[in-house]
Amino acid sequence: MRTNYCGAINTEYLDKTVTIFGWVHRRRDHGGVIFIDLRDREGLVQVVCDPDNVDTFQTAEKIRNEYVLKITGRVRKRPEGTINTSLVSGEIEILVAAIEVLNSSLTPPFLMDDDNISEVVRLEHRYLDLRRPAMQSNLRLRHKVAMAVRVFLDRQGFLDIETPMLTKSTPEGARDYLVPSRVNAGHFFALPQSPQLFKQLLMVSGFDRYYQITRCFRDEDLRADRQPEFTQIDIETSFLSENEIMSLMEEMMRGLFKDVSNVDLPNPFPRLTYADAMFKYGSDKPDLRVALEFTELTDAMKEVPFKVFREAAEKPDGRVAALRIPRGGELSRKEIDDYTAFVGIYGAKGLAYIKVNRLSEGVEGLQSPILKFLPEDIIRTILVRTRAQDGDLIFFGADRTKIVNESLGALRIKIGHQHGHAESGWKPLWVVDFPMFERNEEENRWQALHHPFTSPADGHEDFLQTDPGKALSKAYDMVLNGSEIGGGSVRIHRQDIQSKVFRALNISEQEAQEKFGFLLEALQYGAPPHGGIAFGLDRILTMMTGSESIRDVIAFPKTQRAQCLLTHAPSTVDEKQLRELNIRLRQIETKSSSG
Amino acid sequence: MRTNYCGAINTEYLDKTVTIFGWVHRRRDHGGVIFIDLRDREGLVQVVCDPDNVDTFQTAEKIRNEYVLKITGRVRKRPEGTINTSLVSGEIEILVAAIEVLNSSLTPPFLMDDDNISEVVRLEHRYLDLRRPAMQSNLRLRHKVAMAVRVFLDRQGFLDIETPMLTKSTPEGARDYLVPSRVNAGHFFALPQSPQLFKQLLMVSGFDRYYQITRCFRDEDLRADRQPEFTQIDIETSFLSENEIMSLMEEMMRGLFKDVSNVDLPNPFPRLTYADAMFKYGSDKPDLRVALEFTELTDAMKEVPFKVFREAAEKPDGRVAALRIPRGGELSRKEIDDYTAFVGIYGAKGLAYIKVNRLSEGVEGLQSPILKFLPEDIIRTILVRTRAQDGDLIFFGADRTKIVNESLGALRIKIGHQHGHAESGWKPLWVVDFPMFERNEEENRWQALHHPFTSPADGHEDFLQTDPGKALSKAYDMVLNGSEIGGGSVRIHRQDIQSKVFRALNISEQEAQEKFGFLLEALQYGAPPHGGIAFGLDRILTMMTGSESIRDVIAFPKTQRAQCLLTHAPSTVDEKQLRELNIRLRQIETKSSSG
Repeated sequence: MRTNYCGAINTEYLDKTVTIFGWVHRRRDHGGVIFIDLRDREGLVQVVCDPDNVDTFQTAEKIRNEYVLKITGRVRKRPEGTINTSLVSGEIEILVAAIEVLNSSLTPPFLMDDDNISEVVRLEHRYLDLRRPAMQSNLRLRHKVAMAVRVFLDRQGFLDIETPMLTKSTPEGARDYLVPSRVNAGHFFALPQSPQLFKQLLMVSGFDRYYQITRCFRDEDLRADRQPEFTQIDIETSFLSENEIMSLMEEMMRGLFKDVSNVDLPNPFPRLTYADAMFKYGSDKPDLRVALEFTELTDAMKEVPFKVFREAAEKPDGRVAALRIPRGGELSRKEIDDYTAFVGIYGAKGLAYIKVNRLSEGVEGLQSPILKFLPEDIIRTILVRTRAQDGDLIFFGADRTKIVNESLGALRIKIGHQHGHAESGWKPLWVVDFPMFERNEEENRWQALHHPFTSPADGHEDFLQTDPGKALSKAYDMVLNGSEIGGGSVRIHRQDIQSKVFRALNISEQEAQEKFGFLLEALQYGAPPHGGIAFGLDRILTMMTGSESIRDVIAFPKTQRAQCLLTHAPSTVDEKQLRELNIRLRQIETKSSSG
Repeated sequence: MRTNYCGAINTEYLDKTVTIFGWVHRRRDHGGVIFIDLRDREGLVQVVCDPDNVDTFQTAEKIRNEYVLKITGRVRKRPEGTINTSLVSGEIEILVAAIEVLNSSLTPPFLMDDDNISEVVRLEHRYLDLRRPAMQSNLRLRHKVAMAVRVFLDRQGFLDIETPMLTKSTPEGARDYLVPSRVNAGHFFALPQSPQLFKQLLMVSGFDRYYQITRCFRDEDLRADRQPEFTQIDIETSFLSENEIMSLMEEMMRGLFKDVSNVDLPNPFPRLTYADAMFKYGSDKPDLRVALEFTELTDAMKEVPFKVFREAAEKPDGRVAALRIPRGGELSRKEIDDYTAFVGIYGAKGLAYIKVNRLSEGVEGLQSPILKFLPEDIIRTILVRTRAQDGDLIFFGADRTKIVNESLGALRIKIGHQHGHAESGWKPLWVVDFPMFERNEEENRWQALHHPFTSPADGHEDFLQTDPGKALSKAYDMVLNGSEIGGGSVRIHRQDIQSKVFRALNISEQEAQEKFGFLLEALQYGAPPHGGIAFGLDRILTMMTGSESIRDVIAFPKTQRAQCLLTHAPSTVDEKQLRELNIRLRQIETKSSSG
């Protein structure tokens, strides 16, 4: 019945009769004629109701915004001077022959082209919010990205295999969402945090190449960029090395950006070891758009009179580093104070700096409260190593390495983007050679930096027992503009190595058996070497669409309180349902025992 | 590193050096030479280890079934007389130059080409079971089907839009899986029984064409062909009529069967009204492979002396029908007794029959215990209406319509397939013009035959109030070989009609508001006419693969007790987890209060 989408009619259709369906975006009366902008998912078209056509004109007089219409009419050129070049249909209009009102509408709480609506109102009326062109375009891009991924992976021989949603706790550190079992009283399913173990089992089964675009769940305290349920592009392959997996995955990503956004990503992606990334950028997900880099100074500061630097340099886990800001001399006192407060968020107790006014004047040409505490040769070292130029400003971080990296790393990004030291566009890279473990200081134990199924680097198996902190892994992260968009690794395919890793993580034989006995068993029946990766689809889309929030690329997202403002989920349920599930609420409990 | 898949090497590669990875399917020592059948997902290839190559031979001597090998070698012709025509690689073999054992294997609990393994053992070692060629092929077909669906729908402008998994109870009659919310104490999410309401909201949002291949959940008592989680091809469109939706969907299905199985389905699919389907086959999902049809006799039996027939014919909800079995005269007394027992399962109290020996001899040529209770003109009516031929047998059903339909309908299928009255191949059809409601006798109320969002047929709106049983709907089911593989409808897009349907279903204003207030609200803001369908992917695949169980087309299925024998989900969880979720177990409760 529909001959065309509204937003796709152009001069090709001149003099043709078309039938279109859509929503009234605007109605204007102008010189006795009624103009309607009719909207569908492809855009707007202008519809003209002439008073000569009495029937249609009477109908047109009654319609309001967001009414749903079926219109048949002839396509004609717009009069000179009324052409709208921002629309595909901007050179034409449709002279109505027939109008049918398919549905009316109450006055909506906001206009569909208003971009300044509070998010609460948007989420409460999500079905209207999703009519807005920005949201239409975001979800359409999401479809395109998912489809491009599928087509690529299908061509590469990957099989889309579904793994269970009702499953057993996975050990990735986050809290599980639990689902009480009615049939098996007192027992619970867990919603998957990722299909990690299942995809490894599929490799043991010989499927060779697996993928799935799948929902994952983490019951964590929510941050702005997190959702309780999120979507992962989950991939696993057998018999490929780290390099082969990384090459294939960046090929996918290049294709994706080209197909969907016509962007050329570099070939190959640059690679950076974890150690280098921390050394140069203080981050394992450096934003390479920012040209600024750290300068290492720890070794030079071990004997300086300036206590803050000396003590940091002397600590085994301390670091002193500089961040040179070209032309940073322009920064005002106020700006430097603001940056000092900013690094405080990351635990830095101050933000020492040196302004480089005129190098030719030696120390006299510098300006800094800390100069008096630093010997001249050290100052010279700083200037040489940072390659300081007249007009630069050098910031310093001196503290525990973690604090220096985080504070100076954040400062690098902030100043980089604020003061013209950042390129635009897309800067992907791989970060590789991650450590196997990181120290959990609170619980005084090692924990897996990726997950406990990550293979140690070749030759690093022995460190698992002798010096876990030294062991590197075969993990790799894909980083884009300062965000980790994908992370993966070659997995352990031998049961003896897997046991050693559990031991290093202080997971007892019994606990390992209880939690992933089936994996340990599977590894004994001819598990192939295998590895994979998982990409965060929501995050990739948030970046590709330039959205401020992950919620803008999800059709029906939840708030930071994990609520759906549209359906009012989660909600209370009947006592009968709880009884069937063999559970009761604790609150009700407390009340009834005190009553 | 890998140059070829094992199972894909053929004479094209003669004299080439290949590197392959795979599992040892069999090892044979034969005349001082070791032969290995190496298996990967593409199949087997024969590998030959010559004792002249001492290193590789020594390695080959140590390997056992299911070891994982990397092999490099030269492709050569197999000697005359050893060609295996059942393999792609059957004319060649690989003379090994190098073997690397990538992993060893314990002796597996079953051989990979054994098809007689108990399902419990298979599910406990699913990662091994999935190595079996049948399971590899099933899951690969599943991938192909899903991809073919996606490609078709993408080309037709459908957008893949993800809907929430953590959502609110939907009202489709089945029990919800609940997920306690930690952040919102005492509140629960429900896992979706289907994305029904969300896809309707997406139409209200103007996305025009939506699809999703998505997991759905029903906490029902499990039958052989049910799983607690199952996969639905979920589709919704705006502005299309029933006919347009059905045409598009059968086009998809035809393409699917052609692409994936090279099967030509009819164009168009035949259509049958619900009334006709019940009338002719006693079923709303008739198996059209079976040529047998019912003959209506109710009108003719209202005054016969035979009480069983007369009483059924006189009842307002009674029916008398015949099922003629061509050449059924051959059935033995024992077979007829078995069929009588069989229809008893469906509530039939007996199974009257007439054997048609020689029509030319009149009543004398018939043989039946009931002849004496039937007047001759009625017997003649039976013979004429059923078009009886010499050698036929006519079965009768006489009872409440429901019992006649179910028992005689089941008998039709059973005899049809057992006695050569069924074609092979694929017989799809549409069943249309369903009633809006069916009577729930136990609860003495109307319930939705499809779901409460189904639109009444044009002109049937008034029946919603005056005579709900008469109201037909715009629902349609796609039926294939006696199974419903998809069901859908044009939905209600006007709030006033939706309210009327809720009223007919005895859902109070308040309950409707609580459960789907957001939908009722959305319908007031310019909801377009819309409709859709959902296909059961698991069932389609069970049929396409000729599997006995739905579990054979799911990678990690659950048992009928809703358990995963591999991971042992569901499982008990820590008290701490329950406390965080503000719930406690009822059992523990009871115990501690009695202790």
